[in-house]
Amino acid sequence: MASNPVEEKGLAPWRSSLARALHKNSSLVYARYLQLATVTEDSLPANRTIVFRGFLEETNQLKFITDSRSQKVEEIEKNSWGEACWYFPKTREQFRLRGKLTVVRLNNPHPKLAKARHTTWQEISDNAKQQFTWPHPREHRGQTNTFELPPPNSLEPLSNFCLLLLNPTTVDHLELRGEPQNRWLHQKEDQQTWFTQAINP
Amino acid sequence: MASNPVEEKGLAPWRSSLARALHKNSSLVYARYLQLATVTEDSLPANRTIVFRGFLEETNQLKFITDSRSQKVEEIEKNSWGEACWYFPKTREQFRLRGKLTVVRLNNPHPKLAKARHTTWQEISDNAKQQFTWPHPREHRGQTNTFELPPPNSLEPLSNFCLLLLNPTTVDHLELRGEPQNRWLHQKEDQQTWFTQAINP
Repeated sequence: MASNPVEEKGLAPWRSSLARALHKNSSLVYARYLQLATVTEDSLPANRTIVFRGFLEETNQLKFITDSRSQKVEEIEKNSWGEACWYFPKTREQFRLRGKLTVVRLNNPHPKLAKARHTTWQEISDNAKQQFTWPHPREHRGQTNTFELPPPNSLEPLSNFCLLLLNPTTVDHLELRGEPQNRWLHQKEDQQTWFTQAINP
Repeated sequence: MASNPVEEKGLAPWRSSLARALHKNSSLVYARYLQLATVTEDSLPANRTIVFRGFLEETNQLKFITDSRSQKVEEIEKNSWGEACWYFPKTREQFRLRGKLTVVRLNNPHPKLAKARHTTWQEISDNAKQQFTWPHPREHRGQTNTFELPPPNSLEPLSNFCLLLLNPTTVDHLELRGEPQNRWLHQKEDQQTWFTQAINP
């Protein structure tokens, strides 16, 4: 992680294409769902659906939420690389976004990140908040219903609530509707510069 | 790969749930699209959308197609583990299928697999066939249009056409519509036996 993970200038060149895709697919609630791949300690691929929660202010980092007890948090602490695959059904296009992941836990020392964690908690629905009161994910499910705890505080995140950030350094954008198809590869060269080229689909 | 990769008896316990999801989502063409994660030689996650092409006859192996020139073929030859993440929008459920991948190329020595490669070629659309005549994927796109080669033979697969098989050994099925949610973990214990348990979402 860079010394200051939130310092970044300007929109990356893939941001306008992604904004257009989000806009054109906005009638589908699941157009904000994407699949995040990580690598386990045993070098196995892991892949799950997550919900896009917007961009971290003034950066090109995608925001998600996760539970500190989930397997992906453990995986990311061993290998912080992730690749998100995001398919937009209406416009028939795919974005593959590869970059480093950052888990922003309780007591993150960076004030802007700690604040973003708080703000994100306040923005998510009551149902989304409630899930952080549930018993430990992936453990054997008991007979008794332990899912009905009182709703958590709407201002103060529960301790297991994490903000998850993806900072893409390679973005592969494929339009299936092109003639025959269009594909662009965007690669980050340094903190300020992206290199974009048209490639074969 | 087992000595006989197509020998397997009986439907796995997750097959009925998956069949139901496919049926209930069949009005959405993209309900047959899923995301396949693999691991690169440098231990980076890779993730892309692929199209489900049914099951290999009398097995629980999922069929896909791929181009021998694609990056995933290279990745799979180094690390054959894959995890498919399959989200069904209408029924709001997710299947995560982890297992070994097999690339069935031209001249595969196993007669049943060689035959399945042929049959799959014959089953795919002309548009899908045509993509195998395109120039090398992910290379710099030239100025001239080299995408208009004559249509390939409809019976005999092009040499770069591969059948791709995923043989799941762990299937994690999550129903978001449950109360609060339902999640099952299916684990393959040996060639004949699966172990299924309800786990916390």
